[in-house]
Amino acid sequence: MAARAAQMNPSVIREILKVTERPEVISLAGGLPSPETFPVEAFEQACARVLQTDGRAALQYAASEGYGPLREAVAAMLPWDADPAQVLITTGSQQGLDLIAKILIDAGSPVLVETPTYLGALQAFTPMQPQVAGLRCDDEGAVPDDLAAQAAAARFAYLLPNFQNPTGRTMGEERRRAVVEVAVRTGLPLVEDNPYGDLWFDAPPPAPLSARHPEGCIYLGSFSKVLAPGLRLGFLVAPKAVYPKLLQAKQAADLHTPGFNQRVVVEVLRDGFLDRHVPTIRALYRSRRDAMLAALEREMAGLGVEFGRPSGGMFLWLRLPPGIDAGALLAQAVARGVAFVPGAPFYPAAGDARTLRLSFVTASVEQIERAVAALARSLQDALQQRHG
Amino acid sequence: MAARAAQMNPSVIREILKVTERPEVISLAGGLPSPETFPVEAFEQACARVLQTDGRAALQYAASEGYGPLREAVAAMLPWDADPAQVLITTGSQQGLDLIAKILIDAGSPVLVETPTYLGALQAFTPMQPQVAGLRCDDEGAVPDDLAAQAAAARFAYLLPNFQNPTGRTMGEERRRAVVEVAVRTGLPLVEDNPYGDLWFDAPPPAPLSARHPEGCIYLGSFSKVLAPGLRLGFLVAPKAVYPKLLQAKQAADLHTPGFNQRVVVEVLRDGFLDRHVPTIRALYRSRRDAMLAALEREMAGLGVEFGRPSGGMFLWLRLPPGIDAGALLAQAVARGVAFVPGAPFYPAAGDARTLRLSFVTASVEQIERAVAALARSLQDALQQRHG
Repeated sequence: MAARAAQMNPSVIREILKVTERPEVISLAGGLPSPETFPVEAFEQACARVLQTDGRAALQYAASEGYGPLREAVAAMLPWDADPAQVLITTGSQQGLDLIAKILIDAGSPVLVETPTYLGALQAFTPMQPQVAGLRCDDEGAVPDDLAAQAAAARFAYLLPNFQNPTGRTMGEERRRAVVEVAVRTGLPLVEDNPYGDLWFDAPPPAPLSARHPEGCIYLGSFSKVLAPGLRLGFLVAPKAVYPKLLQAKQAADLHTPGFNQRVVVEVLRDGFLDRHVPTIRALYRSRRDAMLAALEREMAGLGVEFGRPSGGMFLWLRLPPGIDAGALLAQAVARGVAFVPGAPFYPAAGDARTLRLSFVTASVEQIERAVAALARSLQDALQQRHG
Repeated sequence: MAARAAQMNPSVIREILKVTERPEVISLAGGLPSPETFPVEAFEQACARVLQTDGRAALQYAASEGYGPLREAVAAMLPWDADPAQVLITTGSQQGLDLIAKILIDAGSPVLVETPTYLGALQAFTPMQPQVAGLRCDDEGAVPDDLAAQAAAARFAYLLPNFQNPTGRTMGEERRRAVVEVAVRTGLPLVEDNPYGDLWFDAPPPAPLSARHPEGCIYLGSFSKVLAPGLRLGFLVAPKAVYPKLLQAKQAADLHTPGFNQRVVVEVLRDGFLDRHVPTIRALYRSRRDAMLAALEREMAGLGVEFGRPSGGMFLWLRLPPGIDAGALLAQAVARGVAFVPGAPFYPAAGDARTLRLSFVTASVEQIERAVAALARSLQDALQQRHG
């Protein structure tokens, strides 16, 4: 076995998901989009059309860069002037993280991440053996002064400006300007991950970092949250200086992303489909976020819990009162029929054991209400034990 | 950029394919299965059935191990007693090579490969910075004495026993026994790549190495050659001691292979589909191999060319007479309307510049005849220049 293998660990989340797969448990743990939002009929029509009109090409080997019309569609969706030649179609945006790690990280290279950050990014970076350093963060994400202080030695900073996983927080306009200013001044490359940007509830988030500084950013996007994750279709947009190496890493990783899936999504996207479809997802997720916030206000009153009020995305971050460990609480919560993910694994180093992540998109409003009530009762039990 | 990035290079084959995409050029260069063999209608029915009966699950996130019924189908297809729990579904078998490299190769680790070997494997291993050493080979592949001599320090030996890419050669029964005996005696892990094993023309090849020594082998297989490559569906079968690390590497690489594609293939495989379908591929490819061999006998007579007589697969290996460089010949051949891949890039170190690879599966019999005649005329020109 390689030394790198010893550092790789199973996803805590996936292990928890296995434990909580019992049907009587309401899971607020996973990051699963609501399957009601999957446009199954549109996919069925698109599959038939692709196979009838272009079946043999769709089933043949294809270019590692991705299917031309999909690269053009992606470039046209971006809020800055990106060339389709800079778009690389990936097997989910998770693969984008793997490719970036391969071309930018040597063993021991410093890499900066938000505190906490997306667990899957830590997993993608780990096999390349970086030194991962956490950035000081507030409720808008990375603090510019700390980014500047740590920039010199780092290969890149990995940032999720919109409705971050796991915290749900969003960088405001001023913060984005300040972060980009640091990147320009120090030459620190940014990796901007934006899987949730379209899932805003009230107003669209400010423009991406990449739109402000395209030559210094690699941008990651995905169709998982606006269409369906089971197709594994993501993309990255890279400066022309690094694109060729990312493409070579892509060739070596899986030759290319399934051409059939790429053609099916091009068919689904026709005639402004997303303009009609995404608002229905926003409305559904907003109603569930509202239900979760209302339930938390009601059920957690007086229990000393702090929680965020995300303005989009899929996740809400919660901090338990002093002395309560989210990992220990999970066992009691599962016994009462609700599951969540403890927050500590999302930290690059020692995590805050009082934090946890709740997803508000998979369960129904009625399930969310029952789940939050059960969580509050578990917490009351734990508080009594703490005082007892 | 990481040091590993500097070692990564674009695929010579893909670069050649771009040059030779002109429609007037008959390409014997690519490794593209004949699209006539793709069961487009079966896919169309399967897509409709999956989306109508199980659409939401098919479009949701899924287990990194792969879709249970597909893992069971794979285990049942293998000619030894494999547990579905040892099967990992991969995004093409190319991804299997990437995952193996991640968990078994440290920077500087010795890795053994056949001489020549599959170029895509060299590309998959390169980012992990191994020391790649070529095994002495004859027309049955790796010579057991050399395998034994180099076994001690190596992390694994990567072998393609059936209709190897690029040479078309196959290990016989005695050779397989001897190779496995070396692996057992020295403890050398084997990585057995078998994308072409079902494409035999006269008789099935001997049992895989993995069937003889499952606890010491990682086996790679693919649906690309028996169904269609555009779905990117491969698999690996690993001993229980290494499976968990491969699974973690898979999670980090792309979370999971598209669940929709996995379900579609399970639908297509029902009722013994491959038992009816694969013989039609064998018959088509055999007729094209026969045509290529006959054309080579006829056109190359007296030109001093040596070539293999593959008993299956997709490729034929050819060696030009002394003083003729395949790379230089390619330009002349393209001018005469035929493309091939020079053999040198397939070698782990300095390659034999007189070798080249011809694919006999993508072009029709009539195209093969014209292409081999054009290749012979290019060679005659080159021989005249050599003597001139």
